[in-house]
Amino acid sequence: MDKKTKMLNELKLLGTNIIDYLRKGEPPKLQVPSRITSNIVYDPVARCYVLGDKYKLRSAGNIAHVKKIAQTMCVATFGKELAEKSQFATLREMYYYGEGWPCGKFVDQQESDMVAEDLEVMLGCKREDFGIYPEESGAGVFGDVLVREPDGNEIHAEKAGMGGYTIPPIVDDIEFVRCGAKRLIAVETLGYYHRLVQERAYKRFDALIVGLKGQASRATRRMIRRLHGELKLPVYVFTDGDPWGSFIAMVVISGSAKAAHVNKELATPNAIWIGVTPEDITKYKLPTDKFNDQDFKRIEELKKDPRYQGKFWQKQLELWEKMGAKSEQQGLARHGLSYVVEKYLPDKIREHEPNFKPKPA
Amino acid sequence: MDKKTKMLNELKLLGTNIIDYLRKGEPPKLQVPSRITSNIVYDPVARCYVLGDKYKLRSAGNIAHVKKIAQTMCVATFGKELAEKSQFATLREMYYYGEGWPCGKFVDQQESDMVAEDLEVMLGCKREDFGIYPEESGAGVFGDVLVREPDGNEIHAEKAGMGGYTIPPIVDDIEFVRCGAKRLIAVETLGYYHRLVQERAYKRFDALIVGLKGQASRATRRMIRRLHGELKLPVYVFTDGDPWGSFIAMVVISGSAKAAHVNKELATPNAIWIGVTPEDITKYKLPTDKFNDQDFKRIEELKKDPRYQGKFWQKQLELWEKMGAKSEQQGLARHGLSYVVEKYLPDKIREHEPNFKPKPA
Repeated sequence: MDKKTKMLNELKLLGTNIIDYLRKGEPPKLQVPSRITSNIVYDPVARCYVLGDKYKLRSAGNIAHVKKIAQTMCVATFGKELAEKSQFATLREMYYYGEGWPCGKFVDQQESDMVAEDLEVMLGCKREDFGIYPEESGAGVFGDVLVREPDGNEIHAEKAGMGGYTIPPIVDDIEFVRCGAKRLIAVETLGYYHRLVQERAYKRFDALIVGLKGQASRATRRMIRRLHGELKLPVYVFTDGDPWGSFIAMVVISGSAKAAHVNKELATPNAIWIGVTPEDITKYKLPTDKFNDQDFKRIEELKKDPRYQGKFWQKQLELWEKMGAKSEQQGLARHGLSYVVEKYLPDKIREHEPNFKPKPA
Repeated sequence: MDKKTKMLNELKLLGTNIIDYLRKGEPPKLQVPSRITSNIVYDPVARCYVLGDKYKLRSAGNIAHVKKIAQTMCVATFGKELAEKSQFATLREMYYYGEGWPCGKFVDQQESDMVAEDLEVMLGCKREDFGIYPEESGAGVFGDVLVREPDGNEIHAEKAGMGGYTIPPIVDDIEFVRCGAKRLIAVETLGYYHRLVQERAYKRFDALIVGLKGQASRATRRMIRRLHGELKLPVYVFTDGDPWGSFIAMVVISGSAKAAHVNKELATPNAIWIGVTPEDITKYKLPTDKFNDQDFKRIEELKKDPRYQGKFWQKQLELWEKMGAKSEQQGLARHGLSYVVEKYLPDKIREHEPNFKPKPA
């Protein structure tokens, strides 16, 4: 059974469950796994945040729950229609579309977003599976991979323009037809994505270059997970040398608390952060800025974060705190524009693949 | 003489001018057109902001100017090297690259950005012409146009994936090989860019769809100007129905004050704003939010803005003020997801092309 059929069955089950209650003359009830902070737990086996086993019960017999149950039915219907037509819509469109619904009009988009998340946890699938996605700019991918989109269009990610192939919202509907790349390098800044493409890093390193543009979107995280899981590509994440950069890598690796209910489909626990680490700042003599209060505060927060509990991460945080200074990936440019591909990245990849040899430019 | 040769000649002239001074035993001088507010004027013929004729003189005989002149020479050298190698770099990379320069180290990126702008005004060309560009995400283009990038790679903007062809930083180096589209629709939000692509608006309207993602980047504005100027495509800009949305359209149309010295290459004065206008909000019964203080303040500012002095624009601002309410383009979704392509856009295009008939979906 394919994903879509499974999801449509789940939606049907949700609906028949409500109808059953009504036929029995009872107020319909919904059991919704809880997403409160105390129910978001780090799973050391899955190596990411997941939801615990608390749930809340909503009953149409309780006047305070009636509207929410009606809204859930509306969103489920919206999702079903989208899935049946193989269409997709933004969360914002859904919010406005709700203006035309017979009941349960949303007060604001926050409310409609929450109902979409409720549906995700209830059905155990991603809202993207029923065609509802946030408005966010997809990352660019450049390198030797041929993908097929649902309309049959095949795109080679070295031939879609120097901006690369843009990861679309509906990542799960993409097929990987062929891949010659042997690893994946995700880059925090767009500037360095362009640098790597321009320096032909995809050829030199047999790599797919993914431009995260800061915090990676859900679609980007899903894409990286799929490329790692299905094509067995080692994943390297290359960020700025500050606590915030390390966190961008961490969300790719272990997922976010907010997406705890879907992290198992988004996180790539085997992904490796290749700096800029505090040690790199010293080793590569990078230009630094002093930590400000927020940087120090962030370090304290991360020290307690369950995702940062390993020896490696605790050491990084301590080093940073001691150093009290940060650097940016583009700081490598002080040694020349090509330094990042001629020196830094080969060094860093070799730490994990001892026999790695870059090809000539 | 091509653009690059012209620019390299200009750079050479800049250098020989300095050498001439030195040979004569005089302190080198540079004449830099001024970019202070009082020298940014609206040109009613070019229909955009341009620089007036004030300039400032920098002399190495003045100790306060020495560092700036040295920095200008460094950036000029950087630009020359990039252009000769057909490479490009971000403003941020240039700032860090400057760490290795023999003199005139930059205090911060703002300082290095300013020197790049000084060079733009002195040479009368865009910093992109010598390969220096800001870090910004290029818009997506979807539709029937075939482009050729400098490496010879040809990309059809309907076959680069559903995210579209990403406008690269080096817009001027792109060739338009073939274009079947008859008009261009630039869309403010990414959500509605995807909506238009999904609804096959590029086929229905014979249009290139450009996703601005908010305020259009310089590369995007340059691309729109080129598509309008070279391929004679009428340009429609479709934004949210608030003063901020109108301003996104206005910057595409008449340029920004900040880019006054290069607006003649970026602005598209013939571009047409197709709403959401205050009248559309009423006509299409769109969901609204009340104006807040900032919205009212913005209206007052725009009333005085030279770009808003025409009858049409003053009327829009007055209507908004009276109404005290705004709407978003995605608000059209209240009438169904396809309403924007089935009703709104055909209506709006017909206002300017009376014989316009959309094709079937």
